[in-house]
Amino acid sequence: MHIGVLGTGTVGRTLSQALVDRGHEVRMGARSAGNETAVAWAEQSGPLASEGSFADAVAFGDMAFNATAGAHSLEALEMAGAEQLAGKLLVDVSNPLDFSQGMPPTLTVCNDDSLAEQLQRAFPEARVVKALNTVTAAVMVEPDLVPGAHTIFVCGDDAEAKAQTARLLEEFGWPPGSILDLGDITAARGMEMYLPLWLRLWGATGTPVLNVDVRVAAADG
Amino acid sequence: MHIGVLGTGTVGRTLSQALVDRGHEVRMGARSAGNETAVAWAEQSGPLASEGSFADAVAFGDMAFNATAGAHSLEALEMAGAEQLAGKLLVDVSNPLDFSQGMPPTLTVCNDDSLAEQLQRAFPEARVVKALNTVTAAVMVEPDLVPGAHTIFVCGDDAEAKAQTARLLEEFGWPPGSILDLGDITAARGMEMYLPLWLRLWGATGTPVLNVDVRVAAADG
Repeated sequence: MHIGVLGTGTVGRTLSQALVDRGHEVRMGARSAGNETAVAWAEQSGPLASEGSFADAVAFGDMAFNATAGAHSLEALEMAGAEQLAGKLLVDVSNPLDFSQGMPPTLTVCNDDSLAEQLQRAFPEARVVKALNTVTAAVMVEPDLVPGAHTIFVCGDDAEAKAQTARLLEEFGWPPGSILDLGDITAARGMEMYLPLWLRLWGATGTPVLNVDVRVAAADG
Repeated sequence: MHIGVLGTGTVGRTLSQALVDRGHEVRMGARSAGNETAVAWAEQSGPLASEGSFADAVAFGDMAFNATAGAHSLEALEMAGAEQLAGKLLVDVSNPLDFSQGMPPTLTVCNDDSLAEQLQRAFPEARVVKALNTVTAAVMVEPDLVPGAHTIFVCGDDAEAKAQTARLLEEFGWPPGSILDLGDITAARGMEMYLPLWLRLWGATGTPVLNVDVRVAAADG
């Protein structure tokens, strides 16, 4: 596949590399083409890797990942352009963290709305799926770093877009049984509001290389 | 022990019964003494069970559980009285759910504050511990309903209060290794903001008898 990855931070670089490693052609997008980090990544990563603006990356991709900082995601996707996003799968892995008041971060949106819903409303023709925001970048693409079974969530309004996302998650090593569909895009509220707990789990366990396994009572009968 | 349980709903009744079953003397508290549900429970539950007002229940207890509806907890505890709460362990198991705008509920407080913090600020001499709010009532007192290992969180500013809470959790069947201390009372933000995800997990799995197991990468070396 051709995949655009928006964002040059740890998450964007980790996803881009994992996708190239699995044979996809990836264009990493930044605020403008020629971003130093994006150029360095593309040069190191061989012929499947390229870089450009946010708009270049989305135009290049059959689908795109939003791996920008959540507080700036709406702006980044506006730079990418609504026409470019129309009809495309947009996997939103970002978290709307606000570090402006110091630590711990708060969320720029929560409770009765979420960043993924904001994106879906701003780009109604994009097929937004929230996924992967509940684990650190390394675990996104190598779930076996965390021992045993554990769960990754997806949500979105478009069933085929979620199925396509699940196939990519399986390429990253997530077993089908570990992928839990939480329903429509409003479930992103829960997935994003989990972040404050996730940050405390990191603090309490001493590592961000963690995840939760959802366990359910056996059905009666 | 003598334990006051504030609240006559499913959570209050489940906790009260589990505590009586383990030999504790329990006074269930309601807005006023003689609450129909509390009287019926006390009559059915033998000589260790009694009922009264919120103030009666807290005065009776060496410690208290807040199992009132989160949206009304501050008011309930004000009725119980700051003098009664001074120095006592108050285990807050409530969630600040607001159903006034329909389903799904939102939280009355979140992001940069939490109900447990509001309670601790309102009653600075109480020793508030947040615990058990992340599982349904039946699982609180019978964790084995959910198969395998899974995790229960505690937080609070007073280490001895958390240790005392952990001993009660162990009486309910939580193995010591399943009890994860998330730190000071501000961790309650994460524990309470988990609720929207928990509600979606219930929806996706079809049962509230669920929990998460926190899994962490093995330490290097």
